[in-house]
Order: sequence, then structure tokens, then C-alpha cells
Amino acid sequence: MGRVTNRYRVLRLADGVGEARPDTLAAEEPLEIRMNGRPLTVTMRTPGEDFDLAAGFLVSEGVIAEAADITAIRYCAGATVRGANTYNVVDVRLADTVAVPEGSLERNFYTTSSCGVCGKASLDAVRTVSRWAVDADPVQLDAATLSALPDTLRAAQRIFDRTGGLHGAALFDTAGELWCVREDVGRHNAVDKVIGWALRQDRLPLAGMTLMVSGRASFELVQKAVMAGIPVLAAVSAPSSLAVDLAREMGLTLVGFLRGTTMNVYAGDERIRTEDSPPRRSAG
Amino acid sequence: MGRVTNRYRVLRLADGVGEARPDTLAAEEPLEIRMNGRPLTVTMRTPGEDFDLAAGFLVSEGVIAEAADITAIRYCAGATVRGANTYNVVDVRLADTVAVPEGSLERNFYTTSSCGVCGKASLDAVRTVSRWAVDADPVQLDAATLSALPDTLRAAQRIFDRTGGLHGAALFDTAGELWCVREDVGRHNAVDKVIGWALRQDRLPLAGMTLMVSGRASFELVQKAVMAGIPVLAAVSAPSSLAVDLAREMGLTLVGFLRGTTMNVYAGDERIRTEDSPPRRSAG
Repeated sequence: MGRVTNRYRVLRLADGVGEARPDTLAAEEPLEIRMNGRPLTVTMRTPGEDFDLAAGFLVSEGVIAEAADITAIRYCAGATVRGANTYNVVDVRLADTVAVPEGSLERNFYTTSSCGVCGKASLDAVRTVSRWAVDADPVQLDAATLSALPDTLRAAQRIFDRTGGLHGAALFDTAGELWCVREDVGRHNAVDKVIGWALRQDRLPLAGMTLMVSGRASFELVQKAVMAGIPVLAAVSAPSSLAVDLAREMGLTLVGFLRGTTMNVYAGDERIRTEDSPPRRSAG
Repeated sequence: MGRVTNRYRVLRLADGVGEARPDTLAAEEPLEIRMNGRPLTVTMRTPGEDFDLAAGFLVSEGVIAEAADITAIRYCAGATVRGANTYNVVDVRLADTVAVPEGSLERNFYTTSSCGVCGKASLDAVRTVSRWAVDADPVQLDAATLSALPDTLRAAQRIFDRTGGLHGAALFDTAGELWCVREDVGRHNAVDKVIGWALRQDRLPLAGMTLMVSGRASFELVQKAVMAGIPVLAAVSAPSSLAVDLAREMGLTLVGFLRGTTMNVYAGDERIRTEDSPPRRSAG
């Protein structure tokens, strides 16, 4: 994909001395996502895996939950600059059985007119829309397995290697095996691409899986994990307060500052086994 | 501001051994921004400096450009949960002289129906809406001054110190003096807070100033700098391709990977003076 990265001539300065040299940057282009021909949103994304991104966005927003909910995804040739397809408009056609929500999708999780605009209302909105009970997922994970995920994610980020500037998101099973990795200039897009990949393989809910992200964990990322039925979200950096609130409300395990052999478990620590966990201690 | 951070009890794991302890996290709450009573957008932000955030958002979107364009900003007591003001809805009242755009503001810079959805259309949209000619800004900056900015920004990030998880944005003059620093869980919000602060002090355009950000430089951040008349944007991490394209199109100086005494200048390098710059070399 030539569109994933672009080459630029830049001035590299080191200790006051300049040198012109080429540099590879992550590509950023707008993507308009349409549902049954109706424009829903425009997101600035790194081109590639656009169908997964569109599908994952609709999962995150609570519109679809299985592969059969989509009858077709295509680039709109109608959205053109002088007749040329820009490959920046994707239309998702839904099965007749899917209930299409009215109004703005993206506002659903932030505010509802009936109960005001606040964090609590945002949590309530996710609980109302979610189809999966991640709190009932019995998965158990070794802390040592979690500790290995950041290096595996980093090694799999092929575009990051060339540009040093992309968010990564990946799905791992309990053995620490990598199932899917995606990169994007937008953190939320990287996660939507992973979830859309899973949906299109009809693997939702993603029971027992861990979603690992390269940066921070916001409310929005916990929301996306819940909507895909993922019970564990692990981040290299800090979560926000509302991310922790939502994880605790929905029964999702949330790990932050996952670095080396240390981590902070903000919610759902009963899923994480350590060397001094009761079962092991009683056996030793 | 008690709402800027929240304390949580977390499980800290180190080498398989767990310990319960308190942790401070950056707060995240939805903010609905209204213009003359009309809801425009909802953004997940760290509470605090909300009036600056709302004002800066309207500058970034090209609606306002001077302090007199705003007649009042207030929290809406009408958006309540059982009668309690959530302080999560801000209404900006505009002067009669301001032309209020129709339709969705945020789509303006991503796509216009007349020319398709692509990076070029996004660049054109910024050029059409921008009021300031940043390409005509004659400012000159020493590379050594730029190199000092990341440490100054980091030292000024008071919430980051406690949470390890916030984006920072700051305005600096050519002497490297810090004018304003803001933090937020959202990178775009931190920048809008800085720009809104400047607007409300009637300091737009921000001629000669450098905007320094703690993370990456996206299209959106270059757009915001242009809309505020800021000629130099410096980032600790990588820019995207479209950020560089927009900076070159608009004549903004864009610096990335600003770390220690090294940096990459992606656009507008004529503004940066180095030890081997022609003027100094001829004098030596």
C-alpha cells in the first residue's frame, strides 16, 4: 500500500548543524463512513483496512454485532474529484434485519437529552446499548503473559518502524498469541480496524481476548472493547478516570502502565493470576 | 479544581507480586459546546478552562477571531441531571456581527461536497476559511531556543506530574518564554484551550509565537495553528503526511521529533537559525 506512508525531504538539525534528508511519514487522509448511503462521520485515518474501519466503527456505535448484519461494503465511486475515485468514502449496506438508529450516532455515548451531559450519563448509555456481558467472561490471564504483550505489539507495528508515529492496537488470546494488529494515526481508528476485522470474520463477541493499545486508555477505548465483547483492555500508558469508571461499571479488566514486569490493574483484577495469587500460594 | 484529577484504589503488580495502592488519574468528562444555544459538538475533555476550550474550538473552526466576537460564555444550568448543573455544557453567545455558519462545523475541514473527500480538499478548506497569512510572518527562531521548549513544557505540566497521562500544549515567544500552558486528555482540546485563552485576551493573530505540543502533529493541529495565526508548530513526536502538506501549503513552520538538540524541520525551515546558518557563518 503506497498510500500508508509518504516520503518527504526534511531538514534534520543536530546540535545546530543541518542536513537535508528523506523521511517517511504515516499517511493521513479523511475517510467518510456512510451507512446505507447516508453520511455518518468523517475521520482522519491512515489509509488501509478501510472496510474493517467502517465495520468496526458501526460495532463500536452499537449498530451491528455479526458479519451477517452487513450485506456489502464498497468504496463510493460517486465521491470523486473530477471523476477520480479518492478511495476516501466507504458505504456499508446493512441487512434488512438491522435496526438503523436515527440521529447522530456519535452523540449516543456522550450525552442523552433525557439525563444531562455527564460521565454517569455516558456510562449509562454504553450499558443500554451493549449486547455482550463482558462481566460474565470467566477468562483468567497470567500477569507474565500480559507483560509480554507490549513487546509483541511493538514488533508487529510495521508502519511505526518506518515512521515512528502511529498508534497500534492488537488482539491477543490467553496464551499471548497475536491474532490481529492494526495501525493508524488515530488511536480510535486502530481499535475500530481490529474490531471490524473480527466482525467480518464473525468472531464477535471476542470472549477471552485481550485488546492491547500502544498509548493511553480513554473512555472511548473502553466503550469500543465493551461493544465488541472484549473482557480485557491493556494500555502502555495511563487510563482516564472515566475509562476506569466504565470498566468497573461493565466488568471489564483494565490494565494501565503495562511496562516491563510492572502494571497497574484499575478494574477486574480477579482475572489476573500472579505468582502470589491464592491458588498458586496454596499449592506451593 | 477537584475535578481535574480523581483518586482510585488500584492493584500494582511488580514481578508477579501485587500491592493495593492509591493512584491519581486525569479526569475525563463530556463537554457539550453550544453556539447561541445551538449544540455544536460534544468532546471528551479534562474539566477546567472550559470557556477557553469553547472559545478556542470556535476559533479553530473559523467562526470567530477576536475577543469582541463573543458577548458571553456561560455554563448552561438547563442541562442538568435532576436539577444539578453538571458544568458540562457551555454556551457561547456571539456578537451580531459574526456570521454564523450553517450545517456541521466539523465537516468543513475534512470534506466539501463540491470537490470530493481527500487530503487536497481538506487543505483547500483551511485556506478558504483562514483569516491570517502565517506565510507572511517574518519571525526567526534559534534552534537552541526550540530545543529548550520540551523541557519547559514538561516542567509546566502540573497534572501530568500527578497522573502521567495528559497531553500538553503551550505557547512560547521567540525568547523561549512560556505564555500559556494547558493540559487535557484530548490533544486537540489542549490546543483549543491555549488558543481560546489567547482569543479571550484579544491576542489573535498569535504572530511570532510557537505552539509546542507533547505528542504528535496531525492535520488537525496544523489547522488550529493556522486558524490562530501561529507561524510555528513544534511537536515531540512525528507529524502525519497531511500535517506536513498543510504546513507547506499555508507557510507554517513545522518541527517534529524535537528531542534534546535534534529535530526534523518538515516545513518552513527558513525561520530557524542554526550555528551554521548563512548570516552567522558570514560573520564568523
